[in-house]
Amino acid sequence: MQHTDVNTLGEFGLIDHLTKEFAIVQPSTVKGVGDDAAVIDNGALCTVVSTDMLVEGIHFDLSYVPLRHLGYKAVVVNLSDIYAMNAFPKQVTVSIAISNRYSVEALDELYAGIRAACEAYQVDLVGGDTASSPKGMTISVTAIGQAEKDKIVYRSGARPGDLICITGDLGAAYLGLQLLEREKRIWLENPDVQPDLENQKYAVGRQLKPEARRDMIEAFRKNSLLPTSMIDISDGLASELFHLCKQSGTGALIEESGVPIHPESEMLALKFKLDPITCALNGGEDYELLFTIDPQDVEKVKYLPEIYIAGEMLEATAGIKLNTKGGNLHTLKAQGWVHF
Amino acid sequence: MQHTDVNTLGEFGLIDHLTKEFAIVQPSTVKGVGDDAAVIDNGALCTVVSTDMLVEGIHFDLSYVPLRHLGYKAVVVNLSDIYAMNAFPKQVTVSIAISNRYSVEALDELYAGIRAACEAYQVDLVGGDTASSPKGMTISVTAIGQAEKDKIVYRSGARPGDLICITGDLGAAYLGLQLLEREKRIWLENPDVQPDLENQKYAVGRQLKPEARRDMIEAFRKNSLLPTSMIDISDGLASELFHLCKQSGTGALIEESGVPIHPESEMLALKFKLDPITCALNGGEDYELLFTIDPQDVEKVKYLPEIYIAGEMLEATAGIKLNTKGGNLHTLKAQGWVHF
Repeated sequence: MQHTDVNTLGEFGLIDHLTKEFAIVQPSTVKGVGDDAAVIDNGALCTVVSTDMLVEGIHFDLSYVPLRHLGYKAVVVNLSDIYAMNAFPKQVTVSIAISNRYSVEALDELYAGIRAACEAYQVDLVGGDTASSPKGMTISVTAIGQAEKDKIVYRSGARPGDLICITGDLGAAYLGLQLLEREKRIWLENPDVQPDLENQKYAVGRQLKPEARRDMIEAFRKNSLLPTSMIDISDGLASELFHLCKQSGTGALIEESGVPIHPESEMLALKFKLDPITCALNGGEDYELLFTIDPQDVEKVKYLPEIYIAGEMLEATAGIKLNTKGGNLHTLKAQGWVHF
Repeated sequence: MQHTDVNTLGEFGLIDHLTKEFAIVQPSTVKGVGDDAAVIDNGALCTVVSTDMLVEGIHFDLSYVPLRHLGYKAVVVNLSDIYAMNAFPKQVTVSIAISNRYSVEALDELYAGIRAACEAYQVDLVGGDTASSPKGMTISVTAIGQAEKDKIVYRSGARPGDLICITGDLGAAYLGLQLLEREKRIWLENPDVQPDLENQKYAVGRQLKPEARRDMIEAFRKNSLLPTSMIDISDGLASELFHLCKQSGTGALIEESGVPIHPESEMLALKFKLDPITCALNGGEDYELLFTIDPQDVEKVKYLPEIYIAGEMLEATAGIKLNTKGGNLHTLKAQGWVHF
C-alpha cells in the first residue's frame, strides 16, 4: 500500500479528503461537516453539535497544566463552538481514555474542573465513556446546543461590505503558552528555580482557563443582532478569517489598528521578541468570536463593550489583506502566517 | 495526594463516582448519565445521544482487525446504543487521534468502513475532529438519534412478571475473538503458518463485523410493541441483565435453554473447552438486544423471527438466577461471571 504522510494534507485538507465522499441522506441534517458545529432539525428547535479531542503530549502538558484547569478548558473550548453558531449549549458528553498512571484522585481533579465549567455555563453532563489507554490521557468532549433555526449563524453568510468584528482581545493565550513552555524548560534544567509567572497572570490565565463568549451571544439576542457569519477564534485570527472568506466567497481587509491586543500581551510579546500582531493573527486558543455584520447594524455593536470593528469583507478578487499601522498592505497567506 | 487505583472501582463504579455530583439544570435534559444514551427534549422530538471511545491496544488489535472493519464496527456499536433506546440513529460524529505511523491510505480504509456503516444504516457523518497522537490510534464516535418521547425505552421500566427477551444469538463474537487471538499467537511463534479461520466464518464475522439490530426496532414499530425496558448486549448477557434489574428494581430468572446460542458457537466453545452458556453470559460484543415486555404482549413477539423468550423478571428479593438445563438454580454474580 502507498504511504502518504497525513501532514502533506494539513488538518483541514485531511478532513476534506476523508469526508468528501460522505453523502447527507437524513432530512434532519441541516449542516454536516464544515462549520463550528453540525446543525440538526428537530421541528421546533435545531440541535447543534460539536466535538473535540484533546491528547496528552499534543494538546496539553500536565507538567504545567493542572488537571482541574484541563477539565474546565476541555469543556469550554467545545461550548465556544456552540456559541459560534449563535446557539446556546445545553449538554455535554465527556469521554476519557487513561493509563493506569492516573489515580481516582487525579480524575476527581479533572472532573472538578469539568463540573466547574458545567456550572459556570449551566450545561448538563449527560454521558460519556471511560476507557483504558496504554499511555497518557485522551479526552473527547461533545457539546450539544439548541437554537431556533433562523437564529443559527454559519461561516458562509458574509457578503462584501459587511463589517468584521472581533470580541475581547487576541494573542494572550499563545503568549501565556510561550511563558509556560519557557518556565518548563528552565525548570527541567534546574529544578531549584521556581517558575516566574507572577507578573503575567493575564496571559497565563488566558491559556490555562479560557472562557467562551456566552455574554456576546446573550448581548446579540438582547440587541436583536444577527451576525451574517461567525466563527470562534481557536487557531488565530488569520486562519479563522480564511474560513469565513472561503465559505462566504469573499475577500477581506483587516486594519492592524482594529485588532484588539491586551497591553500585557503587547509587553509580553516584546519580551519574547515577537510582533504582537503576529501573535494575534496566528497564536490560537483565544476562544474569542470573529463575526461579520451588515453595516446597517453598526449602531447595535458600537456601544457594546469588548466588540471591535477590525475591517470589512470585500469581493473575493480583492484577496485577504492586512493594512498595517505603518500603512502597508500585506496579503495574508492561506496558512495564516504573515510574512513581513 | 492519595493514589487510589481506578481498577478498585470498576468501570461502572468509576463512572458513578465521577458523575455523582453533577446536577441536571437544563429543562431539556430528560435523561443524563446511566442508560444506553442520553435523552434531550426538543419539543416535538427527543434527541438521543450516545458516545464511545475505542483505543488501540485496548479495544482493538490492528494485527488482525482490518481498518475497514474497525471503522464499520466503531460506528455500529454506537448505533446499537441508540436502537437500545427504541430510537433511530440519524447522525454520527467521528473523532480520531493518530500517530504519524498512519498514512492517508490507512485512514482512507478506516473511513471506507465508517462510510459503509453510514450507508448501511442511513446515518450522516456530520462532524468530528482529527488530532495527532504520540502513539497508536484512538477513535471516539458520538451517535445522535431521534424518537418521539413516548417511544423511548429506558433500562428502568421493567416490572416483576415481565418476560425477558433476547434477539439473535449470543457468545459468537467472544469466541471469534478467542480464535483470532489464538491464530495471532501461533503466527507470532511461526510466521510461516497461515491462519486457520476458514471454518469459523460465523464467529469471526460476528467479532469483526457486528451489526446493530435496526430490524428489531423497525419490527417493534410495525407491531406496535413497546418494550418495558431495553439495553444492548455489549458486555455479555449477565452484565446487561444486572443493569436492567438494578435500574428497574427487580430480580430475574433466566432459563439456560432459552438463551440463544448458534450451533457454530456451541462447537467452537467446546473446541476451546469453554461452556457455551458462559460465553453467552459473559462474552460481550454481541450487540444484540435484551429487552422485557409486558406478558400481555407475548403474541406480538411470538411470531417475530430471532426473538427468544429467555425468562422472567421477578421481585428484587428473588435475586438474579439462572436455571440450568440440568435443573440447577445458580445465582448470577454482580461481576456477571457464573461459578459452576
